[in-house]
Amino acid sequence: MSTESSIELSAVLGRLADILQTRLPANGGDPATSYAAKLFAKGPDSFLKKIGEEATELVMASKDGQNDHIIAETADLWFHCLVALTYYGLRPEDVLAELARREGLSGLVEKANRPQS
Amino acid sequence: MSTESSIELSAVLGRLADILQTRLPANGGDPATSYAAKLFAKGPDSFLKKIGEEATELVMASKDGQNDHIIAETADLWFHCLVALTYYGLRPEDVLAELARREGLSGLVEKANRPQS
Amino acid sequence: MSTESSIELSAVLGRLADILQTRLPANGGDPATSYAAKLFAKGPDSFLKKIGEEATELVMASKDGQNDHIIAETADLWFHCLVALTYYGLRPEDVLAELARREGLSGLVEKANRPQS
Amino acid sequence: MSTESSIELSAVLGRLADILQTRLPANGGDPATSYAAKLFAKGPDSFLKKIGEEATELVMASKDGQNDHIIAETADLWFHCLVALTYYGLRPEDVLAELARREGLSGLVEKANRPQS
Repeated sequence: MSTESSIELSAVLGRLADILQTRLPANGGDPATSYAAKLFAKGPDSFLKKIGEEATELVMASKDGQNDHIIAETADLWFHCLVALTYYGLRPEDVLAELARREGLSGLVEKANRPQS
Repeated sequence: MSTESSIELSAVLGRLADILQTRLPANGGDPATSYAAKLFAKGPDSFLKKIGEEATELVMASKDGQNDHIIAETADLWFHCLVALTYYGLRPEDVLAELARREGLSGLVEKANRPQS
Repeated sequence: MSTESSIELSAVLGRLADILQTRLPANGGDPATSYAAKLFAKGPDSFLKKIGEEATELVMASKDGQNDHIIAETADLWFHCLVALTYYGLRPEDVLAELARREGLSGLVEKANRPQS
Repeated sequence: MSTESSIELSAVLGRLADILQTRLPANGGDPATSYAAKLFAKGPDSFLKKIGEEATELVMASKDGQNDHIIAETADLWFHCLVALTYYGLRPEDVLAELARREGLSGLVEKANRPQS
């Protein structure tokens, strides 16, 4: 890891999406060694049902008011969203741009920061 | 907006969380003018049920393979996750740190980039 | 109603399915006067997203331990399941037969009690 | 089974609820031999998350228009609803009575057919 440059915390979604792209079957993802590659190999129902399941678990953790569970379940949910986005050829930056557009933040966002990949 | 500095796209979640914090009842959020303030005023069931609803809509958009819908529903889902995080005193950076930890990216993440707020 | 014969409580799902069938567009269901007819006219996403939403609301009511809410949300959920079954040309009896099969109750179930409709 | 009297298909929910009651820890349900007893022993989150998961799977099966999957997933969903009802001391007949009330069928339903249990 010493050769990789450090990243800001906010860059984690994009970095995770980069990793998930390498797990796609077309990119040689190995279901035997990667959970995401296994989901991709099984097909969309495998990760879409996780989105429903993790959303429910986030709701339950929230009702319990347990902060560590809320964080963990949101992480689970966002991870499986990233898996879905990757499967459909989309990027978290597409979602962030849509959120910026809705919330009137688009004017603030720097141009040309969408990854070329 | 001219006085605000530009942000990177990856900073959108954090910026949105900043805005949502101002919509909390304790911070003077006005249910008459802000959707998020209205959700906060109604209490957690109002936004938790949206998490279940938007997760289902994301699953349906994915089954349809309609990319613009997938992006829009993921944005809806993440927005309501941010509302929940804000309500419980949490930050998207908490979720990103958890994702970085799980994926072995923690070593890459710069220190001290969690907002002071 | 005086001309209709009484039914057992257990017959309510079948009776409801009979009513829902009359709400299908092909059977003259009127979206202006019937909620189910409106859902049928809008198409499956309209009632499928309700299944996700009502499931989440049942989970929340259960976490709260409020029995009247649990009953009401389960009724909401089963109602929208009946709408979906009707839309796809299925009957609650198909689901009950599957449950009987799984639970080893098939041997107890009387023959020929599936509606001819 | 020869000593048990036959039942109508519509009685399956009530019969299943009778069985589930025997799986409660207080009634000697054994987690080693019964799936429902295992869910009861684990506590409500174990079956509530299944409600979210099975609802999502029903939505996916419906989008695929696969009738056998729709029946199987609805059976899964209703089964876990029965588990939840049993855990909270409720009966499927409570839900059926609520549905009858909403749909104007209450006048048809025979009196005194709620089980004494």
